[in-house]
Amino acid sequence: MQQYPSQLLERAVEAFSCLPGVGRKTALRLVLHLLRQSDDEVDGFADAISHVKHDVKYCKVCHNISDSDLCSICADPRRDASLVCVVENVQDVMAIENTQQFHGLYHVLGGVISPLDGIGPHDLEIESLVKRVEKGGVREIILALSSTMEGDTTNFYISRKLKGKDVKLSVIARGISVGDELEYTDEVTLGRSILNRTPFET
Amino acid sequence: MQQYPSQLLERAVEAFSCLPGVGRKTALRLVLHLLRQSDDEVDGFADAISHVKHDVKYCKVCHNISDSDLCSICADPRRDASLVCVVENVQDVMAIENTQQFHGLYHVLGGVISPLDGIGPHDLEIESLVKRVEKGGVREIILALSSTMEGDTTNFYISRKLKGKDVKLSVIARGISVGDELEYTDEVTLGRSILNRTPFET
Repeated sequence: MQQYPSQLLERAVEAFSCLPGVGRKTALRLVLHLLRQSDDEVDGFADAISHVKHDVKYCKVCHNISDSDLCSICADPRRDASLVCVVENVQDVMAIENTQQFHGLYHVLGGVISPLDGIGPHDLEIESLVKRVEKGGVREIILALSSTMEGDTTNFYISRKLKGKDVKLSVIARGISVGDELEYTDEVTLGRSILNRTPFET
Repeated sequence: MQQYPSQLLERAVEAFSCLPGVGRKTALRLVLHLLRQSDDEVDGFADAISHVKHDVKYCKVCHNISDSDLCSICADPRRDASLVCVVENVQDVMAIENTQQFHGLYHVLGGVISPLDGIGPHDLEIESLVKRVEKGGVREIILALSSTMEGDTTNFYISRKLKGKDVKLSVIARGISVGDELEYTDEVTLGRSILNRTPFET
C-alpha cells in the first residue's frame, strides 16, 4: 500500500483512480499535473465537471445529451423527423453525425441488453421508442447498434416490440470495411457482405 | 472537428483533454462515465480536486507535498536528520519510502536541470538545499536523481554548489537491477556495475 504524504493528495488520487482505465499511478501523475497548473485552471476544471453533471439535460425526444429539453438535432426543422436512427450512446450519435450522411433524428437507448452486466430492456429507452412510433410520424427505424451478441439481442427485442406497428425497420449494412482486404476479413462478415450485395453503381 | 451535442459536455471534455495522456476520445469517455455516477460522487470528485489545489502545502524544510508546514517525515523525531536524500519529485519520495530502507530526510528539487524544457537551477530547490547544509546538522547528502543526462547534470551542479562545505556527498548505486540477466543489460550499466562492485557478503 502506497503511503501518501498528504491526505488531500490521497483523496484526489482516490477520486481520479475511480475513472475507467486510470490506476493509482496514473491518478497520482494527473493530480501532480493539476498541482502545477494555475488556481484558475484547476478551478475551471473542477467547475466544468460539476457543471456538466448538474446542468446537463437529456433531450426528451431522443434522450441524447443536450443543453436544453430538446436537443439541437431534434429541434432542427431541416432534419427528417420520419427517419429515426436507434443508437447505443452519445458517442454513436457523434460518430454518425461526423459522417454527414444521415439527416434524420436519433433515439439513444443508453446501452444494449446485456444480462451479464445486469442490463435488461427496462434499463434502456426502448419503451419510449415504442411510444415514439405509436405517436405516429415515424416512417422508418434504422437500427445502428454494435455488431455484437448484445447488439443483435437488442435489435431482436426492438423488432419484436415494434411488430405490427406501421413502421419500416432496417439495420445498418454489415460488410467489409472500406479499405479492407478480403484475405483478412473474417468469414462471417465476408459471408454477409456477399449475401447483402448491392447493385454496382457507376 | 467533433460536434458535441452540448456546450457543457464540450467544456468538460476540453478540461479533461488538457490532462497528460488524455485525448479527446478518452476525455469524452471519462466525462460520460462521470455522468453515470451519482451527484454526490461527482461533487466529491470536483471537491477533491479543488481542495488539493487550494489547501495542499509544501513542507518548508524538504518541499515535499504535505498537509501542514512541516511534512510528516521531517516532523518525525525518529528519523535521522543528518542524512538528506535529494530527489526529483514527490513520486520519488514515495518510491523510496516504499522500500523502507531509508530513515533520513528528503529534499525535493521539483525537477532536474533541463535546458531543453527551460528548467534552470533557479527553478529548482537547489539554493534551499545549500542553505540547509550551511545551517549545519547535515552529515551526508545522497543524490537520488534519475540516471539520465539531466539527472547527471543536476548532480554535477549540486556537487559544485556544495564544494568546500562540510558534508559527505554520495550517489545511489547504479548497476544491474535485481532479477536482471547480464545478457540483456546494456553495456554502460554493466560496465558501471563492475567498476562499482561491492564486497561479497555472506
